[in-house]
Amino acid sequence: MEEVQSKQNGSSKSVDERDASGSSSSVYQEKVAVAPTSKDATHYRMSSNMRGHAVIFNHEHFKISGLNSRSGTQMDCLNLESMMKELGFLVTVCENYEFNQIKMKITELAREDHTNYDCLMIIVLSHGEHGMLYAKDVIYKPELLWTPFVADLCPTLAGKPKLFFFQACQGDKLDSGIHMIRTETDGQPPNHFRIPSQADFLFAYSTVPGYYSWRNTTRGSWYMQALCEELKESAHKYDLLTILTFVNRRVAVDYESNVPDKVHMHKQKQIPCVTSMLTRLVQFNQLGSNVTIDCNRENDAKTADSSKSKRNFFTSMFGTKKNYRVN
Amino acid sequence: MEEVQSKQNGSSKSVDERDASGSSSSVYQEKVAVAPTSKDATHYRMSSNMRGHAVIFNHEHFKISGLNSRSGTQMDCLNLESMMKELGFLVTVCENYEFNQIKMKITELAREDHTNYDCLMIIVLSHGEHGMLYAKDVIYKPELLWTPFVADLCPTLAGKPKLFFFQACQGDKLDSGIHMIRTETDGQPPNHFRIPSQADFLFAYSTVPGYYSWRNTTRGSWYMQALCEELKESAHKYDLLTILTFVNRRVAVDYESNVPDKVHMHKQKQIPCVTSMLTRLVQFNQLGSNVTIDCNRENDAKTADSSKSKRNFFTSMFGTKKNYRVN
Repeated sequence: MEEVQSKQNGSSKSVDERDASGSSSSVYQEKVAVAPTSKDATHYRMSSNMRGHAVIFNHEHFKISGLNSRSGTQMDCLNLESMMKELGFLVTVCENYEFNQIKMKITELAREDHTNYDCLMIIVLSHGEHGMLYAKDVIYKPELLWTPFVADLCPTLAGKPKLFFFQACQGDKLDSGIHMIRTETDGQPPNHFRIPSQADFLFAYSTVPGYYSWRNTTRGSWYMQALCEELKESAHKYDLLTILTFVNRRVAVDYESNVPDKVHMHKQKQIPCVTSMLTRLVQFNQLGSNVTIDCNRENDAKTADSSKSKRNFFTSMFGTKKNYRVN
Repeated sequence: MEEVQSKQNGSSKSVDERDASGSSSSVYQEKVAVAPTSKDATHYRMSSNMRGHAVIFNHEHFKISGLNSRSGTQMDCLNLESMMKELGFLVTVCENYEFNQIKMKITELAREDHTNYDCLMIIVLSHGEHGMLYAKDVIYKPELLWTPFVADLCPTLAGKPKLFFFQACQGDKLDSGIHMIRTETDGQPPNHFRIPSQADFLFAYSTVPGYYSWRNTTRGSWYMQALCEELKESAHKYDLLTILTFVNRRVAVDYESNVPDKVHMHKQKQIPCVTSMLTRLVQFNQLGSNVTIDCNRENDAKTADSSKSKRNFFTSMFGTKKNYRVN
């Protein structure tokens, strides 16, 4: 671990350094792709007739000893399929794929011409463990799902959002949570530019590393339920990171496990985890509106109304407070 | 790796499962904290007289063989200190701390009563490597910085945003990027609720795992420059994830290394990485405005104007396009 200080034009005054060093063998090679938006656009392009591919790897049954079937995953899958179609995606569902089938599907997808699409979505519904995912037959690293889509390998997706959603455990810890008590009321930019190959990814995990991810055998996983509900409510209204923040709140606040006969599993909580390398807002505006949206958002003091409408939403969806706990 | 299926009230129809299993020994224990916002508030509370503590661990010099001094970090630190003060934080700068000093500072901070504050901010400016950070004397895991602030250990910060910014390398790879060509123009909710201990964290990294993080010896790191500039422009206008998305774009699009005498280091790119477990929007509204903001944001088609104003901003900051490349 050392650091190299680079000089420029013989001057030692102002130079670029990196906050580490090593023996990198990367040599600059110009790679080219078509920019789907202008350099300074605040939003990704979302004006194509087809949003893009959405592939759902849905795993219910496994050939691995000790892995139970994932009851409830069909509900997740149906909800997602219908939601993604509504959002304008070309949806493919891959049921109980083995590792080689997943690899082939991803390779095929990465080779496709995405020029006429605005983004890509990959959804995995499966068992998981410490950052790994289960195919029907073996465990694998999720990297295999996204590495073929980095900008230099898949230039027709360069500059477009590549969205990955994982419904899967990342470990076996439980989070017993904390009880919260409310004590009081209360022009024409330059047309040539470069982006990093790793830009424009977003990783949305159902749970944080090391923790369980919960699923109801009838209604589906907490995370995918919340995701679909929030998208239904707000997909055309807010940008995706805002929506995912509300998904986090929904999962964190509205859900807790209800398995009183297993004391150590009872009343557990879950918090999802979003890792974003997006460089613009993802706004699922109405298809065909062909509008590029700026982020001019007025801040109004309407919390009371909002709380009320949200409360009404929950009540209409789940009845009483008790009922919208997962049980 | 097995999966437990839990039954509820003797019925096997609808139960909660987790997408993995194991031998967890966590037993439910009720932990209590005061909720700073109502359950359904769309934004974190940002109405206190003091925003909260902001601690900057600024590392320029090291006792570790092979680690060069981090020229330019004082500029980062000054920019951040001034920005955070402007945003209403109580700023502490810790210069070149050894590992034990960092640990003591964090312990002290976690023991403090944050009841009257709205959030916490920790900033680390240092060398890094594969997810580890350098103190003056040793390398350490960043987990040590945030684990004492989880909701059950630091209840006066429960339900409040805990914001961590890392300016540091996470490896030694270089990203040669891709050239983009533009071919065409173009009410009263329930007052008692529970949240997971791990909720409400946000991790904003200057670079993705495995990659370099760049710094200019005069102007400071690309990431902290971009962060300060975006906060200056938009802190009271947009929520933090929106701002960090614009920081990502700024770093990814506007910067590239300029070290022509080191071919393998020349014209390299960088993409930051945000991991969010926030459950509400972080909106740095004007201090004292005491307004709880709802996310009623109108979507206007003003991209051309916005691009123009952004271009003018860059031009006024850096002059020509060539000049706002880091060199």
